[in-house]
Amino acid sequence: MFEKIELDKHMPKAEYKKAKKTFESQIGKLQRKLKEENIPIIIVFEGWDAAGKGSLINQLILPMDPRGFKVHTIDEPRGDELRRPHLWRFWTSIPKRGRLAVFDRSWYHRTFEGIANGKMNRAKSGEACEEICDFERQLTDDGYVIIKLFIHISRKEQKKRFEKLESKESTSWRVTEKDWLQNEKYDQYLKAVEETIRETDNQYAPWTVIEGTNRRFAAAKMYWAVLKALEERLLKAEKEKCEKDSHEEADVYTMWDMNASILKSVDLSVSLEKNEYKKRLEKNQKRIGELGFEIYRRKIPVVIAYEGWDAAGKGGNIKRLTEKLDPRGYEVIPVSAPNEYEMGHHYLWRFWKEMPKTGHIAIFDRSWYGRVLVERVEGLCSNEEWKRAFKEINEMEKHLANFGTVIRKFWLEIDKDEQLRRFEKRQNDPLKAWKITEDDWRNRDKWEAYSEAVDEMLFRTSTTYAPWTIIESVDKYYARIKVLDEVIKSIESRL
Amino acid sequence: MFEKIELDKHMPKAEYKKAKKTFESQIGKLQRKLKEENIPIIIVFEGWDAAGKGSLINQLILPMDPRGFKVHTIDEPRGDELRRPHLWRFWTSIPKRGRLAVFDRSWYHRTFEGIANGKMNRAKSGEACEEICDFERQLTDDGYVIIKLFIHISRKEQKKRFEKLESKESTSWRVTEKDWLQNEKYDQYLKAVEETIRETDNQYAPWTVIEGTNRRFAAAKMYWAVLKALEERLLKAEKEKCEKDSHEEADVYTMWDMNASILKSVDLSVSLEKNEYKKRLEKNQKRIGELGFEIYRRKIPVVIAYEGWDAAGKGGNIKRLTEKLDPRGYEVIPVSAPNEYEMGHHYLWRFWKEMPKTGHIAIFDRSWYGRVLVERVEGLCSNEEWKRAFKEINEMEKHLANFGTVIRKFWLEIDKDEQLRRFEKRQNDPLKAWKITEDDWRNRDKWEAYSEAVDEMLFRTSTTYAPWTIIESVDKYYARIKVLDEVIKSIESRL
Repeated sequence: MFEKIELDKHMPKAEYKKAKKTFESQIGKLQRKLKEENIPIIIVFEGWDAAGKGSLINQLILPMDPRGFKVHTIDEPRGDELRRPHLWRFWTSIPKRGRLAVFDRSWYHRTFEGIANGKMNRAKSGEACEEICDFERQLTDDGYVIIKLFIHISRKEQKKRFEKLESKESTSWRVTEKDWLQNEKYDQYLKAVEETIRETDNQYAPWTVIEGTNRRFAAAKMYWAVLKALEERLLKAEKEKCEKDSHEEADVYTMWDMNASILKSVDLSVSLEKNEYKKRLEKNQKRIGELGFEIYRRKIPVVIAYEGWDAAGKGGNIKRLTEKLDPRGYEVIPVSAPNEYEMGHHYLWRFWKEMPKTGHIAIFDRSWYGRVLVERVEGLCSNEEWKRAFKEINEMEKHLANFGTVIRKFWLEIDKDEQLRRFEKRQNDPLKAWKITEDDWRNRDKWEAYSEAVDEMLFRTSTTYAPWTIIESVDKYYARIKVLDEVIKSIESRL
Repeated sequence: MFEKIELDKHMPKAEYKKAKKTFESQIGKLQRKLKEENIPIIIVFEGWDAAGKGSLINQLILPMDPRGFKVHTIDEPRGDELRRPHLWRFWTSIPKRGRLAVFDRSWYHRTFEGIANGKMNRAKSGEACEEICDFERQLTDDGYVIIKLFIHISRKEQKKRFEKLESKESTSWRVTEKDWLQNEKYDQYLKAVEETIRETDNQYAPWTVIEGTNRRFAAAKMYWAVLKALEERLLKAEKEKCEKDSHEEADVYTMWDMNASILKSVDLSVSLEKNEYKKRLEKNQKRIGELGFEIYRRKIPVVIAYEGWDAAGKGGNIKRLTEKLDPRGYEVIPVSAPNEYEMGHHYLWRFWKEMPKTGHIAIFDRSWYGRVLVERVEGLCSNEEWKRAFKEINEMEKHLANFGTVIRKFWLEIDKDEQLRRFEKRQNDPLKAWKITEDDWRNRDKWEAYSEAVDEMLFRTSTTYAPWTIIESVDKYYARIKVLDEVIKSIESRL
């Protein structure tokens, strides 16, 4: 999902000034409170060379009480460090309760590098990630806060920055051969980062990716991420002491709109000509029909999940997917709000029940992702619950994949204007007016909150075994063919 | 550690009657309260064929409200179950909130069998255990209680029971060829059970092994395990609603002494003759000296942890271990109560700091196990904290082992009478009187509580990568030679 992140986000000066002011007025207060509560804090900065980690760290600590923190700069391990388990140097530098430690690079550095340059094979990197997860869970269980930031820039931007540094005598020494090597092997490095982040993105210590092109935006997002985590930790302490109600939530959550990024970079202008559409539809449907028999014969189960905006065209899309499939081999499962009996069980229970048997295709029209979309945005579950759900969902999909299930997930994307056009068109059509309800108009009002939720969902639950694909759906022809293409591709590559 | 469990524990009729009465009066009340709180309960019965699962289940449910529970008997998967992921049939049978499900065999059955008969290789069984852990964590995070009981009998006892069943016409059909196969391959099966239990023994769903030889004892221990888990869950619910103080603990904890089992089976009468001791000491010390140089050359780090009763002879034992080692290659780390600065960190921090570098030996005189011994018994940490510690400690030792560290842990065992003799002897010896403090006498009063803690520690933290060895220490000669033997064996097998 990293490739989908919109890196060129900017922040106007005035807005940034406001963000900075909020941060500065909050951070001192929070630092004091956390000290009173004896809560230790760890902030990890990882990211590309020349992404701006150093200056972000400066901006972070400037308004803080200098007696309360320590900055650790992590280079290659040296001397005794090499003669002890990798985590030893980090264990020995964790902060005392009530203090804050900032890590400029951290325990992740070795894994990023190791995977990127091939020194770590799958088993070794898996072991390293597991150790990191244990380490972070042990600390957070003990009351520590761990904030993990990855500062992200593009290959082009990195190159530009290196060249700029090299062009001045005073800064040219800062660019080393190793830096250029990273730029050369950018794609490999990115893959290593994605893999590591996916394996270590846990509720107790989640990652935040900071779009680093614009320095103001990057600083503001860092402020946001740090305040959010600290406020939440304080709230938890207050709840534990029964000083706060268990349903109260941290303020920062609704204060800034910082997350949405992936959806903004989607190019919705793509389209298909009608003739071309018809031709490809026929060809694809024929192929999917054949593949339906093939997976039946080979006993492969397939799960396809559709999510998307209201009126994005899920129904029509599903229709084109199934039209030429043998009806004995697939099932479409429409998902709406759970009934009382379903609510009496774990939220995944009703989806587990519907999972296809071998050789069958289950198509979910909306899915278990409701937990991190509508239930999150409408407050139908607690903060705690939807945050936990990312991992739970990844696990469920992993269990299905372990069994041999092919899993694909499609997000049908349209913009707000297009949705309005469709709503109005439906309302004016007596045959389709029933499709538009009060709920639809209400959800529309929360477009921004939903965007943020979708963004986080795409980022945290796109995995190699169950990837998300964003389907540009303003042009329905294009959308339908793209889904068919993707499904065909997945099944073929399994066969 | 299974081989160390004392299986022949009996319970006199009168005592059993009392336990049964307590259980019956408690369980109905608890069941009602749990229903009110909408808490779902899952109780898993696993164990040897003919271990008595069926009759235990009967005794469990008899005093319960029959409208509140359902018993699931798990046979080999059939039909559609075979065509879906293994956990599917269990997901679809989890109870609704406020209800109770009893599983006669469960999701563990496949793994026990699979490992025992070689159908599951290491990767497959690891994956299966991981899925089970995910499953159980997802449920308990959602408020479910999962109680897992393994009913344990010896091979001999199983054979006796089979023969008895076969001897009567009315019951002979109950013994199948498959049952006899299990008896034949008892050791293989036991290894599979041990491995699976070790991988799935988590704080959120811990295992209880029930010594099944004596049916009264088995029933009483089942009552104890069930009441304990349910009471703790209710207490948690009350704490969450801020109705109870966060330090209160469930009553059952101190009500019955059920756990202690492993220590009781240790034969303390073993001894060594003085001449034999001298001969073997010289030989062993020479060898350990050589091995010290060898691990230095091969850059292998070694961790040895000593725990044991006061006056069990740790000091003298360590002395014999180190006497002929090059002092530049080892360090003895005496561990006492943490100071204020150490208390300001995660409890493992001070031990991580002392972990040896490659080629060196660290000998801990008492260790991180204080968390689950003195801190548990004396209430120096919360219930929550010491329960969490089993997993944390296993993880730390795993991380060390991943790095290549050889880890051995010794429990120096003496009985209460022997301790008294030694205390008195020390007190009468002006040179040694300082060794005996008020604390020692106080700890002695809590012998039973400590036994229980030691027992659980040995059971939950004896792993392949960091095994515990019980050192029979009434005869000091024997104890010293046994430690030396064990250390030599471990290092040699690593080289």
